[in-house]
Amino acid sequence: MKLRAIGEVELIKRFGKIFGEEAIEDDCAILPINTRYSMLFTTDVITETAHIPPTALPKQIGYYACAVNLSDIAAKGGEPKGLLFATTYRPDMEVDFVMEIAQGISECAKKYGVPVLGGDTKEGRELTIAGMAIGVVRNSMLLRRCGASPGDGVYVTGKVGRGGAAFLKLKYGYEQRKATKELLEITPRIEIMRQIARTGWVSSAIDTSDGLAKALQHLSEINKVGFEIEANALPVDEEAKKVSAKFEIPLDKFIFYGGDYEILFTVKSNMKRNFETKCKKKKLEVTRIGRVTQRNSIHLIYEDRRSLDLSFYGYEHFREKENF
Amino acid sequence: MKLRAIGEVELIKRFGKIFGEEAIEDDCAILPINTRYSMLFTTDVITETAHIPPTALPKQIGYYACAVNLSDIAAKGGEPKGLLFATTYRPDMEVDFVMEIAQGISECAKKYGVPVLGGDTKEGRELTIAGMAIGVVRNSMLLRRCGASPGDGVYVTGKVGRGGAAFLKLKYGYEQRKATKELLEITPRIEIMRQIARTGWVSSAIDTSDGLAKALQHLSEINKVGFEIEANALPVDEEAKKVSAKFEIPLDKFIFYGGDYEILFTVKSNMKRNFETKCKKKKLEVTRIGRVTQRNSIHLIYEDRRSLDLSFYGYEHFREKENF
Repeated sequence: MKLRAIGEVELIKRFGKIFGEEAIEDDCAILPINTRYSMLFTTDVITETAHIPPTALPKQIGYYACAVNLSDIAAKGGEPKGLLFATTYRPDMEVDFVMEIAQGISECAKKYGVPVLGGDTKEGRELTIAGMAIGVVRNSMLLRRCGASPGDGVYVTGKVGRGGAAFLKLKYGYEQRKATKELLEITPRIEIMRQIARTGWVSSAIDTSDGLAKALQHLSEINKVGFEIEANALPVDEEAKKVSAKFEIPLDKFIFYGGDYEILFTVKSNMKRNFETKCKKKKLEVTRIGRVTQRNSIHLIYEDRRSLDLSFYGYEHFREKENF
Repeated sequence: MKLRAIGEVELIKRFGKIFGEEAIEDDCAILPINTRYSMLFTTDVITETAHIPPTALPKQIGYYACAVNLSDIAAKGGEPKGLLFATTYRPDMEVDFVMEIAQGISECAKKYGVPVLGGDTKEGRELTIAGMAIGVVRNSMLLRRCGASPGDGVYVTGKVGRGGAAFLKLKYGYEQRKATKELLEITPRIEIMRQIARTGWVSSAIDTSDGLAKALQHLSEINKVGFEIEANALPVDEEAKKVSAKFEIPLDKFIFYGGDYEILFTVKSNMKRNFETKCKKKKLEVTRIGRVTQRNSIHLIYEDRRSLDLSFYGYEHFREKENF
């Protein structure tokens, strides 16, 4: 049987049988140091095949490869401390192109004050950049994927649909330069997540890099809970609204697209109000979008009480891409 | 200009200008934790193009991808604590093949008691496995590449030429299964290097994964010293002797081949005798092969005082492969 027949999710489940469930449970590994601190380790690989639009500048590719790894540390409430990059390049690649990629990595790393500690470079059949980030987190601030309970509030940082909008713009050949920038020059939510984590009221967290729907599916499976998301409450990105109007794509489709790199998280039911007051005071860009339920289902609820089942779909590697 | 025109060494030098010299100085990044301990981080990526002979079993590929990373921790005198793997697979790859790779990774990791903490899996145009190892080392045992002085003794663990012999066997279609095993099922020198590091007498160390000649070149450049290596003293691997006889290849050629994963290191001039006594007592497989000199040259000295300049050649990625 071929990989494309089973898809990424099933593949990773099978890896769990070999390496143990802990190895696959999270995008970020947690290693306790002492009673106060834990270390965080994460790796994210990007490839020409899966991630890089042909319109991408090499600097943007590098920037993206760096930022996605910092995003995984952000999702844990952690502080990134170092980066490594293992890269493969084709021998016929231009040296200038490769140096621009490195400049992009360096630019992103410097922006967030994280040193590039080293790496490895080999020849290959395509450009691949495996970044690795090392972080530290106070145990009291550590955000995990598991911990959500029925009644908890569901929140998201920033806006929803920016990645999908950029993806669709590229697909339809519209505003290509701007779309490439939106897709690759992402903002890892380090600072805002550290402030959110400091409250101690977050019960679970995950990034939305594979789309809001996929993030909800993951949290649902890990926590054995369901979600009710209010369509009305979603902080839809302005670009998504524009693309939705221009190409007549219903707005709710955008939550199936990846590329947002926001953080979806839940807050303990009895702390929602305190949490929101704190967010308002600190001017954190956070929106409550729904609540955790007991039922093992994920629904997007519209104003007229119609609902859309979000238990399926979302971007998955190896599989034939779904049409929606 | 294309990458293949400048080669790996020049490329990495240029990366140094972007990321800082520290990022490229070593295969393994060192991050001090406190006055007693440092953390070690290393990454090594293997690709179908550059590393994997067509005779390789998937389990062997996984084993190798894991072992090379542990080898980098070993070269620092460190103790590996965790592993991450970022992999790309072709969607048309067989699931069984991929699971066997994972089994190989797991087998190697378990053999050395190191947990696989996580990773990332994406689709790509070829199989690439970027491993990352995290280690801890007592500062007093930390082995660095810099620190060698004229008069220091030069040592190597294990045997020389095993990798080259395996490579040549594969090239000539001889003992292919055995050769594949020798090339990929390598032994990271963790335990022996920890014992060696504990003496506190090692002045510099590096692994010989790109060949003994390249390792000497690196140490020469970093330490601004030269080397005199005695051809007679080299602990030549039995397989190398066999291949040398069978295919009429002079034995000294084997030090240009990569794939050995032994550790080349220097010992302070006034501690050589003590060091060797200790090694004998503990039955460590270590051989003195020469000495550090002041001259900026690397020579292999034969019994008849002829000498071979080792300042050139050795395996380098991206470049056209040299013939020798």
